[in-house]
Amino acid sequence: MTKPALVGIDWGTTRFRAYLIDETGAVIERISSDDGIMAVKPGGFPAVLAIRCGMWLARDPNIPVLMAGMVGSRNGWVEAPYRACPASSSDLSQAMMPIDIGNGRIAHIVPGLSTRDETGAPDVLRGEETLALGTGLHDGVVILPGTHSKWIRIEKGLMKGFSTFMTGEFYATLLGHTILSALRKEPDHPSGFEKGLRAAERGGGLTHQAFSARTSVLLGDMTGEEVAPFLSGLLIGSEILNAVALYPQSKAITLIAEGVIAENYKKALHAKNLDCTVMSPETAFIKGLYHLRPKG
Amino acid sequence: MTKPALVGIDWGTTRFRAYLIDETGAVIERISSDDGIMAVKPGGFPAVLAIRCGMWLARDPNIPVLMAGMVGSRNGWVEAPYRACPASSSDLSQAMMPIDIGNGRIAHIVPGLSTRDETGAPDVLRGEETLALGTGLHDGVVILPGTHSKWIRIEKGLMKGFSTFMTGEFYATLLGHTILSALRKEPDHPSGFEKGLRAAERGGGLTHQAFSARTSVLLGDMTGEEVAPFLSGLLIGSEILNAVALYPQSKAITLIAEGVIAENYKKALHAKNLDCTVMSPETAFIKGLYHLRPKG
Repeated sequence: MTKPALVGIDWGTTRFRAYLIDETGAVIERISSDDGIMAVKPGGFPAVLAIRCGMWLARDPNIPVLMAGMVGSRNGWVEAPYRACPASSSDLSQAMMPIDIGNGRIAHIVPGLSTRDETGAPDVLRGEETLALGTGLHDGVVILPGTHSKWIRIEKGLMKGFSTFMTGEFYATLLGHTILSALRKEPDHPSGFEKGLRAAERGGGLTHQAFSARTSVLLGDMTGEEVAPFLSGLLIGSEILNAVALYPQSKAITLIAEGVIAENYKKALHAKNLDCTVMSPETAFIKGLYHLRPKG
Repeated sequence: MTKPALVGIDWGTTRFRAYLIDETGAVIERISSDDGIMAVKPGGFPAVLAIRCGMWLARDPNIPVLMAGMVGSRNGWVEAPYRACPASSSDLSQAMMPIDIGNGRIAHIVPGLSTRDETGAPDVLRGEETLALGTGLHDGVVILPGTHSKWIRIEKGLMKGFSTFMTGEFYATLLGHTILSALRKEPDHPSGFEKGLRAAERGGGLTHQAFSARTSVLLGDMTGEEVAPFLSGLLIGSEILNAVALYPQSKAITLIAEGVIAENYKKALHAKNLDCTVMSPETAFIKGLYHLRPKG
């Protein structure tokens, strides 16, 4: 058996994921539970950590513990202030927040990042900085699709800035609470996705093209089964269109996603003649945290 | 007392509004109730009309009755098929749907309009065609803000085409069901509106700029009281930006709105150096229907 070298914890809003990682960065054991920070009562963080990872910690009293994600937010264990971009991995290492996890042990929380675009508008992320590091990308863009998709721009190994798109949240909200909701029929038919991508390229913007789904169903141009994939294509297509306009010079793209979401983004990028490398979120997280581990 | 010449009915989804109109187009009496088509049981339309307008009809057995709005939709009294653009007022007159309202009387329902943009994407409206006619605009654009805002392009007195923007519905849905909901504090502070207008002009699109409200509050750039006006400014600003790009040549703009909505759109148009004439929805409706009345 390889030697444990790091306990890495991805502690998000709804999920708790912990990894026992060896000296080479490989996973020895993994734990996953629904102890996301929303489910933890005030003061309850040490107990959750002890219950989920106590055996690893007892086995090796000196193993470093690194945590990333919403555990470092205002509603988490302790607030790890955002590190302003541009930021390198060593900037992140130095800005890690020490936290007493009991029995005289100190763990560290990776801070999130903040940025301002050229107009001064602010943006923040937390957790994605670690996954982006895990790509090992030196120059290019990392896309992290999701409820709040993130596009992180990397130049010469520095995270220079990033932009958030509420793609996943718009999808769920518009599908659940607008006229599109009554139009949608299941099972979804994937042909709607490419219609949505094409709609994103037409003029009029999101509020105009979302309505076109309603009209298209009314006039028989589209089926109810195509409505949800259409909305998905429209939102993902708009995200890519707008993000590419923000970062026009980006060549290398790494997409951190898996399953249907990865397929959809690949399809949407391909439609704009963009290629991407795909990495799973778990792989990116583990590589990123391993990269941030205390060395020597 | 002037002589009644027309019973005009604006029968929408949630409201029933009827006007007794004289020979000059002036209103003699008005009735308003919540008998919108959603509240009318199958087969219940003749009874609602009789209850609300029976006295007017009895007083003048030959008075013409014109109806417009969702009463002519699939869920209304009878479906009056959409008239394809371009359409003149006489095209609309000829396409009116006769309907037996009892006692041998025939009323007419004004049809809605359908259009396709140059990419073939369809759009529809119902009710707004009558208000647009009421502006008397010969060349220009009519803006009808609302749940589903409509921009109607008029050339040489012909309604050439139009575009729908789900501005009002996005506002209510995003404010009610996304992370913006928890951020919002009341009472609203109007300073958020201009911040939203400026955000609409920045890159990144709606899903990106909506998230900037969240970040701005988090970082102290904006107050919770500014969140709802910010979203309103962002959505109205985006609507105008996108609509102006669709109709770049438009000079004369008539805005059919009143109260806060009219003020907000005027402010947003002004920020783009666009002027507009404002007309109230009731005035536009009555003028439009009066224009469509049977003559001679």
